[in-house]
Amino acid sequence: MLSTRQGLTRREVLLHVAALSLARGGLSQDEQTLPWSDLPPPPPSSSGVGMRFTDLAEINEFTVPNRQFFVLHHGGVPRLDRKRFELHIEGELERELALSFDEIEALPKKELTVCFECAGNAGVGSHGLVGNALWGGTSLAILLRELGVRPEARDVVFYGADVSEERLRGNSYPTRFARSLPVADALGEDVLLAYEMNGEALSTEHGFPLRLVVPGWYGVAQVKWLERIEVVDHRFMGRYMSKEYVTLRGVRVDGEVVHRATSVGRQKLKSVITRVTRRPDDRYVIHGFGWNDGSELESIEVRIDEGPLLPAELARSGSRFAWTPFRREWTRPDKGRHRLVSRAVDASHIQPTAEDASMYKATPWENNGQVVREIEIPG
Amino acid sequence: MLSTRQGLTRREVLLHVAALSLARGGLSQDEQTLPWSDLPPPPPSSSGVGMRFTDLAEINEFTVPNRQFFVLHHGGVPRLDRKRFELHIEGELERELALSFDEIEALPKKELTVCFECAGNAGVGSHGLVGNALWGGTSLAILLRELGVRPEARDVVFYGADVSEERLRGNSYPTRFARSLPVADALGEDVLLAYEMNGEALSTEHGFPLRLVVPGWYGVAQVKWLERIEVVDHRFMGRYMSKEYVTLRGVRVDGEVVHRATSVGRQKLKSVITRVTRRPDDRYVIHGFGWNDGSELESIEVRIDEGPLLPAELARSGSRFAWTPFRREWTRPDKGRHRLVSRAVDASHIQPTAEDASMYKATPWENNGQVVREIEIPG
Repeated sequence: MLSTRQGLTRREVLLHVAALSLARGGLSQDEQTLPWSDLPPPPPSSSGVGMRFTDLAEINEFTVPNRQFFVLHHGGVPRLDRKRFELHIEGELERELALSFDEIEALPKKELTVCFECAGNAGVGSHGLVGNALWGGTSLAILLRELGVRPEARDVVFYGADVSEERLRGNSYPTRFARSLPVADALGEDVLLAYEMNGEALSTEHGFPLRLVVPGWYGVAQVKWLERIEVVDHRFMGRYMSKEYVTLRGVRVDGEVVHRATSVGRQKLKSVITRVTRRPDDRYVIHGFGWNDGSELESIEVRIDEGPLLPAELARSGSRFAWTPFRREWTRPDKGRHRLVSRAVDASHIQPTAEDASMYKATPWENNGQVVREIEIPG
Repeated sequence: MLSTRQGLTRREVLLHVAALSLARGGLSQDEQTLPWSDLPPPPPSSSGVGMRFTDLAEINEFTVPNRQFFVLHHGGVPRLDRKRFELHIEGELERELALSFDEIEALPKKELTVCFECAGNAGVGSHGLVGNALWGGTSLAILLRELGVRPEARDVVFYGADVSEERLRGNSYPTRFARSLPVADALGEDVLLAYEMNGEALSTEHGFPLRLVVPGWYGVAQVKWLERIEVVDHRFMGRYMSKEYVTLRGVRVDGEVVHRATSVGRQKLKSVITRVTRRPDDRYVIHGFGWNDGSELESIEVRIDEGPLLPAELARSGSRFAWTPFRREWTRPDKGRHRLVSRAVDASHIQPTAEDASMYKATPWENNGQVVREIEIPG
């Protein structure tokens, strides 16, 4: 589902308005957000990694405003010159191409609302390494098809302009941030070369002038400061494909635990409760967001203390890659401390408990277990 | 080019006989092999790695006899029971399958002569981690097509029965040896589930009862003790895909050295001189082998001391994946020490000098530089 320069379809407009109205619905002037009792302290800044969390309790819009959108990068932040910028597309293609920024902007524009989450989003802050935005850009698939992908092609490698040091066998090497997609995924109709975020030009911290947007995939796939696309006839194994952002997960096969190593790719089904608000009439509302890889989201349920799973109201939008705001009314809760948790269900999966999600898992990535939050209801 | 149960074609027979005759041609009873002056000492046994080198100077056949064929494994050697053996084929397929050994043997048989080299073959012994054999088995592609590969499929993962310890974040995990191929490569017509080597059942050390043979790829792709094939919708990043057997190679792009990380895959063009023989009439012959990824081999040349590149005679065989024996007569060389080197050329590449091959390369894999060998000619 996408909107184009020609404007939104009537159905998209209706869905979008409905989503906005629900997302904003709990936010009347006289509404108050209650503090969490259990929120862990914000994470320390890591050396060598630029990181900014979004406080999801503050997000009142369907999309996260650009200045609040989470930031995470692993090397220096390159400041690129729009006038001198060139995107090189090369490798196993019938024809190679270099495009100036003006030439990219002159290509057909596509807009798509996409939520992505950092694969390491868990356990710190308010799960604030996730965000939803309207991305504007041009279709990678159309460009690649136009250039003619050769049958030998296996991977499409995306190189950013940001450089970090890679250590190997005791030596250091400067390495550009790079990720790859299998050719079939790179040819997916929704992959964007994006230059706009919520209707504005990308800011430097979000990848100016150009970033990749791979709907339904974790944040690490959304390469910022994109400068070079190389189609190769083999497997690319850069640091952020093969050494970092690799999930080692034990699964039971024929009664034996087998560990499977996978590069972080498509997002796992997840939901989090982000805040509880109180209205003057003493009704409470539990708010949150759910997202996945673009599969059909069936339901999100909320459990209060040891009670039953209660269906939440979903704010469906026109994009299957957008996050889905949800809310559940909580009528006159008892005074004291309560335990809240949400669980999402889609066409193929049920969001697991935290324990099930981490069973046999040897790496911190892709934690999509249910998140328990505690809150104190005043008397 | 392959031979089937129905027998070799006439052209294949002629080529095969010609190859054998050339490979054996230098081996009359009264011929003597001269010792190398510079051959490095054999490598020490590595802990945790089972390794046996082939002395290429001893190879008189077009194929390497099974007992001399090089061996390298990273974990324990599993002893499997042919009667209880099952190959599981599962994942992103319309239909999953478990096959007994008898059922595999009952499938159409395909035979193919394939040379593979260990990606770490260099600098020790006589480059003896390479071998050429006639492999017999059944076509993986036919099986996978029969089972119906789903459009979501991205990788085909091959699990051996051999287990080693993987260390990650301070913990140890038992991990089966596993490698993957992109779906397009797994569907290549020449990939074999092999159970015969030079006409005999596989021995335990060569992967009894079943191994994968991926023609034109380095040895690490030829998974031994193959027990499970899993078709997955994402990238597999096991240890031997992503951490070991990864080449980090610097290449010049727009005047800048960019490091590219690739999983060891297709073989690079290479040739080595393996011995010099002397005949009673005081003629000398320089012998060796060349191989690549199956591209058309154009020529192999030999240089003696600082002389010109001299074309060698090639023993072409019926399989483009076989190695190519070569020889060059050396008439009445001067007494004293000489320096010999060979250089192969195929449709796309010229074998580089050792210096060019290792330039900017940060890992020991895929060393295909020209190999200089020294020899003392007696008076």
